[in-house]
Amino acid sequence: MPLPIAQMPFPAINARRIMDRCDALARHSEEPGKLTRVFLSPEHRAAAAAVSGWMREAGMHARMDAIGNVLGRYEGTQAGSPCLLLGSHLDTVRDAGRYDGMLGVVTAIECVQAFADAKRRFPFALEIAVFGDEEGTRFGTTLLGSRALAGSFDPASLAARDAGGVTLAQALRDFGLDQDRIGTAAKSSAELLAYVELHIEQGPVLESLGLPLGVVTAINGFSRLRAALTGSAGHAGTVPMALRRDALAAAAECVLAVERIAGATPDLVGTVGHIEARPGAINVIPGEVRFTLDVRAPDNRVRNDAVRDISAALIEIAARRKLALNIETLQQQDASTCAGWLVAQLEQSIRAEGYGLHRLPSGAGHDGMAMQAIAAIAMLFVRCKGGISHNPAESITEADAAAGAQVLARFIENFRAPNP
Amino acid sequence: MPLPIAQMPFPAINARRIMDRCDALARHSEEPGKLTRVFLSPEHRAAAAAVSGWMREAGMHARMDAIGNVLGRYEGTQAGSPCLLLGSHLDTVRDAGRYDGMLGVVTAIECVQAFADAKRRFPFALEIAVFGDEEGTRFGTTLLGSRALAGSFDPASLAARDAGGVTLAQALRDFGLDQDRIGTAAKSSAELLAYVELHIEQGPVLESLGLPLGVVTAINGFSRLRAALTGSAGHAGTVPMALRRDALAAAAECVLAVERIAGATPDLVGTVGHIEARPGAINVIPGEVRFTLDVRAPDNRVRNDAVRDISAALIEIAARRKLALNIETLQQQDASTCAGWLVAQLEQSIRAEGYGLHRLPSGAGHDGMAMQAIAAIAMLFVRCKGGISHNPAESITEADAAAGAQVLARFIENFRAPNP
Repeated sequence: MPLPIAQMPFPAINARRIMDRCDALARHSEEPGKLTRVFLSPEHRAAAAAVSGWMREAGMHARMDAIGNVLGRYEGTQAGSPCLLLGSHLDTVRDAGRYDGMLGVVTAIECVQAFADAKRRFPFALEIAVFGDEEGTRFGTTLLGSRALAGSFDPASLAARDAGGVTLAQALRDFGLDQDRIGTAAKSSAELLAYVELHIEQGPVLESLGLPLGVVTAINGFSRLRAALTGSAGHAGTVPMALRRDALAAAAECVLAVERIAGATPDLVGTVGHIEARPGAINVIPGEVRFTLDVRAPDNRVRNDAVRDISAALIEIAARRKLALNIETLQQQDASTCAGWLVAQLEQSIRAEGYGLHRLPSGAGHDGMAMQAIAAIAMLFVRCKGGISHNPAESITEADAAAGAQVLARFIENFRAPNP
Repeated sequence: MPLPIAQMPFPAINARRIMDRCDALARHSEEPGKLTRVFLSPEHRAAAAAVSGWMREAGMHARMDAIGNVLGRYEGTQAGSPCLLLGSHLDTVRDAGRYDGMLGVVTAIECVQAFADAKRRFPFALEIAVFGDEEGTRFGTTLLGSRALAGSFDPASLAARDAGGVTLAQALRDFGLDQDRIGTAAKSSAELLAYVELHIEQGPVLESLGLPLGVVTAINGFSRLRAALTGSAGHAGTVPMALRRDALAAAAECVLAVERIAGATPDLVGTVGHIEARPGAINVIPGEVRFTLDVRAPDNRVRNDAVRDISAALIEIAARRKLALNIETLQQQDASTCAGWLVAQLEQSIRAEGYGLHRLPSGAGHDGMAMQAIAAIAMLFVRCKGGISHNPAESITEADAAAGAQVLARFIENFRAPNP
């Protein structure tokens, strides 16, 4: 019978090594002085080799799969058992920070190292998936690594080209991989007990609450739309206010409606990121305005209700001001819900480690969106400075890295899959 | 003792000829199928020659002055008397309409023709100034013709270059004019009883009221400003609404504040014509927004109060949302007030001709802005279709042209300068 959580001997986490390894991975970059590491590049190969080495030091079997992911396996008390899959990604955006993806990879290895050092094994295997492409920087299609692992790789992606005209198919060949074997990268749900990813928050919520860690409730779904308002352009001097059909004044009301509707529901966000007023001269009343709309929520019903409410508000504004309105949906994706039992076990570990609890949605996309097809998913967020990510200024503290690793290790140690 | 106005025999106006002559002038264009006629061009020369010919047919002495204006004079009962100066301009914007400027020129000539046909002379001379440059299309500096006539020509303008690199000084030489003689174009206030210009409205007010004519109270003064709001850019998914410092949401409030403040005072207008949100991506909260502001009013105090109120509103919005704000004044010009006694005499003529009265400010600039330095000014506006100007779709009816000419003729016939 296991000891109560709080009394269990705890493996030694080396947070300094986590920080050092993030620094070491950051040196594998195609641009000197900046971090840019894309899928199937020489830097990808070098970083994958470093990670494989660390895995082996931690007593894991490490291999590269058919899409270029590194897979490490630490057997359980019985060889061949289903695994708890940890993971994150190794690729970056251009001029990236050094923690987005890499912190999750390095922390998972650090946890296994600690268990290996303590000669601990579990009634389940531990695997670490180090995805080769999450960001989509090189080929414009995201989640190539986790989609292959989840068996949802789209062969049409093979024709995607990078900026230099190289197809994904060619890049795989150049990397020494065989596109016909991509299917072998797929895992079945029977092999997996869960997929759990530690990641920096990439937002300001945990910092604003003074908490090092947060548990993700869902990876937000999103709807992206474009709106166009058409009124009448006119001379800024000769058209009295009452006779105007000013498309920018109408758009201003729309922007505030988006802010008001999104602000009225927790975890819902709405953003107008791009706006253009035409003709755009200082002395001409704008006759046409186009703007974009990005709506996200961890709950699909909430997001769909918000899109409906925002659309209704825009229609009302345009009608009242006698403007023509066109709304076009560009893209949408449903939310990926984290499993309640995993959220509960992560929170138990956070509590056991003495940190405050906070649940939050993930506003950004993650590999869990692909992994949910074959496993229950969960994510543990680590506070980052100023909410800044995808930027060289991305920063975390060693203390927060330690907190994340300790909570992840305790979660692993106490992990119990629900009865099937 | 003169007859009461309503019983006076009235000279015959030929409105068809006004329309035909506007059409004829429109054929003097540098671009086939479009109307573009700029200062000191071959088309300017050809149009000036046509106008001079029509003046001579109407019994006027016609000459070109040292800046390229055509001046026509119809002597009064005593030769050498001070004159009532009518006028407008002959130059156009690119791809222009055919009435902006030209209607005032042709109508003034039509009135003189009618008086000449009836062998009528007045105790004052009639002059018509046909300005060569009002729009500033070629050299970027407006009112070159009327400034020379008003004695306020700035010699620094001689160095201004057109799109082909030709200076104004060179263009004058090429046109056969002598820059050293520009001073001779200046008239003294002793020579002038008033400057009165008929012009299309270039706005939608008269059309909306169902009136063919309006009397201008003032040529609006204007203030042009640029505002920059700086908040925090951020990920559209990861930053909750409550933690945002969205520069576009703040700018939207500013746009509505401009509309509200301008709409609260008659004849005041305020326009945000240009806006730019940065970085301007669909999935990024705008961290910086710049927008322009154009405020106009016929009364300087009203305009200055509005700029002050708008600035205060912007400051309050920025402070409440914790954004940095910078407001910069780009340009300002005071209003040019039309003389009350001229307004009254124009309205008497409108009433005598049986049209409804309406006073309105001019939102656009006109030669009267220069002429007010040496004469009392007034303007009579003629309704145009849809408020459209500076565009080939600029349009008036023959009936409205007739109304304008009849009112202008009656105004001339009954013109009395106030006792000095």
